[in-house]
Amino acid sequence: MQDIQGYLAQHKDRFLNELIELLKIPSVSADPAFSQDVIDTAEVIKTRLLEAGCDTATVYETDGYPIVYAEKKVDPNAPTVLVYGHYDVQPADPLELWDSPPYEPVIKKTEKHPDGAIFARGACDDKGQMYMHVKALEFMTQTGQVPCNIKFMIEGEEEVGSANLATFVKGHRELLQNDIILISDTGMIANDIPSITTGLRGLSYVEVEVTGPNRDLHSGLYGGAVANPINILAQMIASLHDENNHITIPGFYDKVEELSTEERAEMAKAPFDKEAYKAALDIADVHGEAGYTTNERNSIRPTLDVNGIWGGYIGEGAKTVIASKAYAKISMRLVPHQDWEEITTLFKNHFESIAPAGVTVQVTPHHGGQGYVTPIDTVGYQAASKAYETTFGKTPIPQRSGGSIPIVALFEEELQSKTILMGFGLDSDAIHSPNEHFGVWNYFKGIETIPYFHKYFAELSQA
Amino acid sequence: MQDIQGYLAQHKDRFLNELIELLKIPSVSADPAFSQDVIDTAEVIKTRLLEAGCDTATVYETDGYPIVYAEKKVDPNAPTVLVYGHYDVQPADPLELWDSPPYEPVIKKTEKHPDGAIFARGACDDKGQMYMHVKALEFMTQTGQVPCNIKFMIEGEEEVGSANLATFVKGHRELLQNDIILISDTGMIANDIPSITTGLRGLSYVEVEVTGPNRDLHSGLYGGAVANPINILAQMIASLHDENNHITIPGFYDKVEELSTEERAEMAKAPFDKEAYKAALDIADVHGEAGYTTNERNSIRPTLDVNGIWGGYIGEGAKTVIASKAYAKISMRLVPHQDWEEITTLFKNHFESIAPAGVTVQVTPHHGGQGYVTPIDTVGYQAASKAYETTFGKTPIPQRSGGSIPIVALFEEELQSKTILMGFGLDSDAIHSPNEHFGVWNYFKGIETIPYFHKYFAELSQA
Repeated sequence: MQDIQGYLAQHKDRFLNELIELLKIPSVSADPAFSQDVIDTAEVIKTRLLEAGCDTATVYETDGYPIVYAEKKVDPNAPTVLVYGHYDVQPADPLELWDSPPYEPVIKKTEKHPDGAIFARGACDDKGQMYMHVKALEFMTQTGQVPCNIKFMIEGEEEVGSANLATFVKGHRELLQNDIILISDTGMIANDIPSITTGLRGLSYVEVEVTGPNRDLHSGLYGGAVANPINILAQMIASLHDENNHITIPGFYDKVEELSTEERAEMAKAPFDKEAYKAALDIADVHGEAGYTTNERNSIRPTLDVNGIWGGYIGEGAKTVIASKAYAKISMRLVPHQDWEEITTLFKNHFESIAPAGVTVQVTPHHGGQGYVTPIDTVGYQAASKAYETTFGKTPIPQRSGGSIPIVALFEEELQSKTILMGFGLDSDAIHSPNEHFGVWNYFKGIETIPYFHKYFAELSQA
Repeated sequence: MQDIQGYLAQHKDRFLNELIELLKIPSVSADPAFSQDVIDTAEVIKTRLLEAGCDTATVYETDGYPIVYAEKKVDPNAPTVLVYGHYDVQPADPLELWDSPPYEPVIKKTEKHPDGAIFARGACDDKGQMYMHVKALEFMTQTGQVPCNIKFMIEGEEEVGSANLATFVKGHRELLQNDIILISDTGMIANDIPSITTGLRGLSYVEVEVTGPNRDLHSGLYGGAVANPINILAQMIASLHDENNHITIPGFYDKVEELSTEERAEMAKAPFDKEAYKAALDIADVHGEAGYTTNERNSIRPTLDVNGIWGGYIGEGAKTVIASKAYAKISMRLVPHQDWEEITTLFKNHFESIAPAGVTVQVTPHHGGQGYVTPIDTVGYQAASKAYETTFGKTPIPQRSGGSIPIVALFEEELQSKTILMGFGLDSDAIHSPNEHFGVWNYFKGIETIPYFHKYFAELSQA
């Protein structure tokens, strides 16, 4: 493409500052306290998309947070790319673990980001990666080289399960019609090892409530005589894994795709340094399902993790109480072919069935989504691969990710188009954690690479 | 005694109002936010003791909250009774479960308290029961019939383990010298079934912390590949009981006193309605150690209960995170002969030993105390028994309680005197729970009964 390096050098500070301004807005979709910020962010995105060159941009209301839709039409005969991203972010707590305030972005050098990284909630997931596409559009528009029609759909509920996106997609199939969907909401192996995510795990997220006695009780007068909801919840959670860390829910593995020895051997080629992995997390050893490697455990195998647990007295000091209720938030990562709604039902039935007399159990499904595997023999994948080759000088490695972007499966079903996952973040960027960050180098590398995707996708589509 | 009924009738409103004023002060020893209130309460107690007739009253500073000491000397040849009580209260949370604010006392009729009960934190445990002794002293002083020398030691750290009481007692053996210790900090079976507590359980209270990765992680990228501290904590807690609800800590039962068939048969005579018990707690069934009855499980058998647990995301909505840390507060109720410090060490060693690689565990002992059994063939017990016979018209039943008053064992060791536990509350008074209350009838019945204890104790001692 015509002098993209020069354009980036010329506008570097502005491109950084625009992202920093975006990161200052705490658009936490999970917490109603931030609802106005989430809504404000949608308006900002709309404005930036118009400034970047979109012909039209609209904020669509939903039953939840709005969806920003915009488009740049260049030629009815050119292929159409639908860019998806999200402007909402994860909650920032625990706040005390942040080295700098989550909504006051700062740029600091790190071992993996010698050119500096932007530290802020949402820097990588997904404001930073989403905004790369906005700036790539600006470059293509300003230099008069927009090879595809480009549509943008930026939502505000990805971190809480995209509850209203399906309704929007089903209601706007024509508007959203496209030849390929492009998303930057994943990572790559390393700055010198580009990779394209070809698989995503599905998700089922539930909340459980265990109720014992109808009021908190004195543990001296009642201890040992009534079921303690916290002890019971602990026993029920513990029973969900066996000694090999297999999940014990009946039917849970029935539809799990078993990879061939060849496929596993291919996966094993991806570079992985177990010692470095353990050192980075300060853990003495890894932990997971018997018979699988770490890379397999967090990509091709389903998992069950408690994301939060609470009950009884959790204040300072001591309170000798038997709580009336105990709670947990539990999520299951699923692999292709496992249906998240079916798994949610299996969990609910099983969890309710193992509750002992003396407690009652309520399971409330939160949200979920299907897993996804994308083929690599498509025009879309080839265009992405060539784009990385051009800007990284290396062929990217196809990689399964352990994360979930439930809407990818939805898109394929509703819009009959494939999704290409061009992620520029690193697993070490601490998304969903304190001190989330996104490499400045990665941000600009993304902006540089994306126009080539559009270029090659147009060329290969018309070939 | 001379016209105690008349005196109570004449001063009923004032006696109630004085207690209500005392209950308005939130003297929560567990929460530093209330420290000034705890300190203020000590001063109020001192004033009330002087007003009631004590010759002297002193607020003794400690490394924690102060101890109020007061005395009424009548005759060097008369026996001396040391009254112990506490002016601190349990935290009131969860506040939303209170029908009226915990520090705005209200009097309401209940099924078990047709004459009304005072609803407030501390109403029964222990401000109400402690204050009965202050008003009993007023009556005896005003009517010129104080048969014993009476000493008062009212502390402010009972709900957090009486951390500084031992030091005070050891440093003031002479001052505290007595012939019997009298405490009203327990319950009785029913208003028409008076009972005297002859056994208390010991206590070991610990806090555990399980640490996995050095930061919260994205459950998609790391789920299934690293030890999740919450899942691990649940497994560790679950493993502390076997399928018969026996505690699995090695050595835990070594010193447990096994009651004879005769003793268990004697205990079984205490009236107990299992259906009513279940109905009162809204539970489908009781739950506990195999081979023992409900009354045995909560009195003569040791137990292990989680009093609080927390970790990960516990806010609204969903957060797909693997927490870096998970915590629990765990208490063990012990029976006579189990040494609480030895049990704490057994717990710590065992809990640390069962931690899998991939997590680190820290066990922090909070506090504890020894169990206690008091003989019923003593002058003290006989005096108490006669006092109940006089005011209730029935011989009280000796009863083992599941609760703990660790300092009772301390008193016996340091002051070489026995303790009599004359409790006037009911198990249904919701101590340590929302809507704690104390029957108005019970309050006045206590004030009426206590002077008879002093009378009979003096008579029987000199007999």
